[in-house]
Amino acid sequence: VENRGPLTVAIQGEAGAFSHQAALDAFGAAVDLFPLPTFDALFETVTEGAAARGVLPIENSLAGSVHENYDRLWASPLHVVAETIVRVKLCLIARPGTTLDGVRRVASHPVALAQCRRFFASHPGMEPVPAYDTAGSVLQLVRDTPGWDAAIASRLAAGLYGAEVLVADLEDDPRNYTRFLVLSREPGPLAGADKTSLVFTLENVPGALHRALGSFAVRGVDLAKIESRPLRGRPWEYAFYLDVLGDPAGAVRAALAELGTVARDLRVLGSYRRQPLPA
Amino acid sequence: VENRGPLTVAIQGEAGAFSHQAALDAFGAAVDLFPLPTFDALFETVTEGAAARGVLPIENSLAGSVHENYDRLWASPLHVVAETIVRVKLCLIARPGTTLDGVRRVASHPVALAQCRRFFASHPGMEPVPAYDTAGSVLQLVRDTPGWDAAIASRLAAGLYGAEVLVADLEDDPRNYTRFLVLSREPGPLAGADKTSLVFTLENVPGALHRALGSFAVRGVDLAKIESRPLRGRPWEYAFYLDVLGDPAGAVRAALAELGTVARDLRVLGSYRRQPLPA
Repeated sequence: VENRGPLTVAIQGEAGAFSHQAALDAFGAAVDLFPLPTFDALFETVTEGAAARGVLPIENSLAGSVHENYDRLWASPLHVVAETIVRVKLCLIARPGTTLDGVRRVASHPVALAQCRRFFASHPGMEPVPAYDTAGSVLQLVRDTPGWDAAIASRLAAGLYGAEVLVADLEDDPRNYTRFLVLSREPGPLAGADKTSLVFTLENVPGALHRALGSFAVRGVDLAKIESRPLRGRPWEYAFYLDVLGDPAGAVRAALAELGTVARDLRVLGSYRRQPLPA
Repeated sequence: VENRGPLTVAIQGEAGAFSHQAALDAFGAAVDLFPLPTFDALFETVTEGAAARGVLPIENSLAGSVHENYDRLWASPLHVVAETIVRVKLCLIARPGTTLDGVRRVASHPVALAQCRRFFASHPGMEPVPAYDTAGSVLQLVRDTPGWDAAIASRLAAGLYGAEVLVADLEDDPRNYTRFLVLSREPGPLAGADKTSLVFTLENVPGALHRALGSFAVRGVDLAKIESRPLRGRPWEYAFYLDVLGDPAGAVRAALAELGTVARDLRVLGSYRRQPLPA
């Protein structure tokens, strides 16, 4: 698909969302963006083939995992074929001509507002207004007459909607990164991959998780992440999601073979190339 | 404190919240309830001694952990001294005299609304309205003229506010339990305790989590739960929260001594008696 013109990439949220930035980082400017209102719609659109890829936020370095997206990954037949990491830089954005003095009400997604506490503390005349989306708050500002004078979103959103960045770098903590997974109907190539995401459940017996992790530890395979999610209808039992590092055709394959004898419902979600933190 | 009259117990939410039910289950009817608007206020109120105990939701069997409350536990000097498990039974509640036919708009916390999908599907004339609280939606219904005709909350809330249960057992899945932790300024007694909650961080080296869990596995100490949360300022590093089962003065103490040589920032949050699922 990649060589036959622009790639259709599904995201949750409006154009200008951080998922859009992640899609541009992963695929370059020749992306045919397919914005969708919900994560469920994103999974459906890629599964049905109406988009070649989906870009899904899975974890923020401050707020933690997007847990429901782990549930969706397990329920879906899609494969993880890449990851991409976006540095979350938040801007105060307004209609052209608005001055900082004219800003009273500032809309954004509640998570973004919560990451700008210091900015609001130093601008007591400004009131945060929770909204459904970062980029959507800018779109509404430009298109409608919403109940706010400015929005907090990406610089990308300001450019797309013809709005202006009044203040940049609003975020309290610059070590604010979101990790996105790229989803596809077909698995990616193992060549060059050095990270594998998987999910499994365990018998409810003492030491089961320790034994499961031992499959990787004895081979020196590093665990990058572990996440647990409840199993529906089985209170206080969990599915475990792991990201492990190493050659998926080497030590990781051997570890998975051993894990398969210990775990139930083992499934590899995908192998892909690990990405460093962006500058 | 317990023998000198009613115990002051802090909860987040209004009277009639499931946290209130948890407080009644844990301490009996002679509870002097201290309702607070936020979880941060709950921690403060117990830390300052204005309440003897706090009752904190930590996990729902369908929705998963209340992750931010793990962060708060680590940041707080309070001790976990008990757990209590509430079966979440959701009722459709209205002002006396309202009939089912007269109900158009139904308010509740978004998580409660999401757990009643089947009820809304079979009552297409009813519209879910997201609100800040389950019991608070009943209180507003009785006290104010809010934009809804009914609320979804506990039977306890209906009774407290003089409202009526129109329909019971709205929840899609009856295996819907919330586990609460009881917090106190002083640790609880080890005698009778068979569950211990702890938190630690690890060196970022291969096999570190496997080695940490090995402290428990080699002693046959069962792991009831593992949760991970991001470390602020250290992207893709985590704190690990464990619940382990067994005698805190026996095998668990030995395991903790060994874990202390592997883990960083190890802290025991508390030892207490494990509770079964309620009927």
